[in-house]
Amino acid sequence: MRFTSTTSADDVTEQSFTLNEIPGVLWTPDHAIGPRPLIAMGHGGGQHKRAPGITARAVRFAAEGGFAVVAIDAPSHGDRPQDAAFNRVREELRAGMAAGREPAGLVAAMHDLLAGQAVADWQQVITAVQELEHVDDGPVGYWGVSMGTGLGVPLLAAEPRIGAAVLGLVGLPGLAEAAAKVTVPVQFLLQWDDELVPRDEGLALFGALASAEKTLHANLGGHRHIPTFEIDDARQFFSRHLSPDRPPLST
Amino acid sequence: MRFTSTTSADDVTEQSFTLNEIPGVLWTPDHAIGPRPLIAMGHGGGQHKRAPGITARAVRFAAEGGFAVVAIDAPSHGDRPQDAAFNRVREELRAGMAAGREPAGLVAAMHDLLAGQAVADWQQVITAVQELEHVDDGPVGYWGVSMGTGLGVPLLAAEPRIGAAVLGLVGLPGLAEAAAKVTVPVQFLLQWDDELVPRDEGLALFGALASAEKTLHANLGGHRHIPTFEIDDARQFFSRHLSPDRPPLST
Repeated sequence: MRFTSTTSADDVTEQSFTLNEIPGVLWTPDHAIGPRPLIAMGHGGGQHKRAPGITARAVRFAAEGGFAVVAIDAPSHGDRPQDAAFNRVREELRAGMAAGREPAGLVAAMHDLLAGQAVADWQQVITAVQELEHVDDGPVGYWGVSMGTGLGVPLLAAEPRIGAAVLGLVGLPGLAEAAAKVTVPVQFLLQWDDELVPRDEGLALFGALASAEKTLHANLGGHRHIPTFEIDDARQFFSRHLSPDRPPLST
Repeated sequence: MRFTSTTSADDVTEQSFTLNEIPGVLWTPDHAIGPRPLIAMGHGGGQHKRAPGITARAVRFAAEGGFAVVAIDAPSHGDRPQDAAFNRVREELRAGMAAGREPAGLVAAMHDLLAGQAVADWQQVITAVQELEHVDDGPVGYWGVSMGTGLGVPLLAAEPRIGAAVLGLVGLPGLAEAAAKVTVPVQFLLQWDDELVPRDEGLALFGALASAEKTLHANLGGHRHIPTFEIDDARQFFSRHLSPDRPPLST
């Protein structure tokens, strides 16, 4: 794991790193003393590790919840090389949506193409980040919606170190088998007027998760319009399941 | 408005009162100084103003959110005289449910029988309680699930002083017209495995509310098993819409 830059703003330190060609970012509260739980954040399709929705949440999870937060570029995203097969599926998806076709099948195919590598990436990254002295080796949180859930559900199915997850904005197609293996507490975000995910398919994925504790948060608006108060709700959910809120400073 | 008893526990003062034959309870933070927003709480069918689910929330809304909280007995409930027509519908409902019939129609009929009086009761109570010196005259919160929503939706449709509401655990039948007049922010609770309210009917009532901001919180479990973390979520929802959290003490 090689750190390539360190900056600090708003009481949060942001460190860029690479680990075996995987580019990532780690956020921790400034002056953090002692190990703290980790939250892994998976970005959406076409986005990257520093997408605004990722950075805004990461900074607040670190500053207000005292967490360490890590994001990485998904395969074929951000600073990573683009795979030819992925590019073909993505072009098909764009053309299909422009033609008004129902995107669920192609979205599922795109996620399926990336999931194996994405799971392997996260497993390496969690191992490496949990070796840092200010990150504890207890249960890890996972936050990811849209493609972050398309890749996150297979990750949760495979990775017992993840102890709680915020998911959403994707439907059941392609994820039924993995969803049936998810048993950790989940907060699931659904946008009532999602133009990309039919409401019934989102409800069906929520229903298919095998978790004994799961809460659906459905809000008005389209795919990209999760209300900002859900950031607080997610932070509180992680605090409830990973640790009590702890002040980011040692004072 | 006549106060009949005052007790204090857990930093919250509880006062019993009657107002024009309506028995009620008012909870306020001990040593509260200055006016604070009011939350009105409507209990479920067969319950009363001090049902455990009401009292537990009222004490926390007062102690942790700094609110004044008022609950009253619904018509034909608690310490109020039982109406003969109400008793007939209630017996029909019990017999129908024992016979395995779908209860939605009879539940709607029972709520419809009480709603006119319930709305008039709340309008008097809000006026009287807001005249107290430690209650402000700004927007009022309303919390009520099951029958508390069956009577609460007509109240919200009729009463502009209510500025935000937590509702849930009831379906659309009988409430469509009133729901279309509800425009304030709503947090709507749905139990995924509700044995009394078909999931589709709960989702339909959420969908029918005309509010520009509304959030559905769906949790696993039956009608009486709302998870306790939803108490915190409701308090934060009211704080967001009625006032910032303020400490209950003046110190």
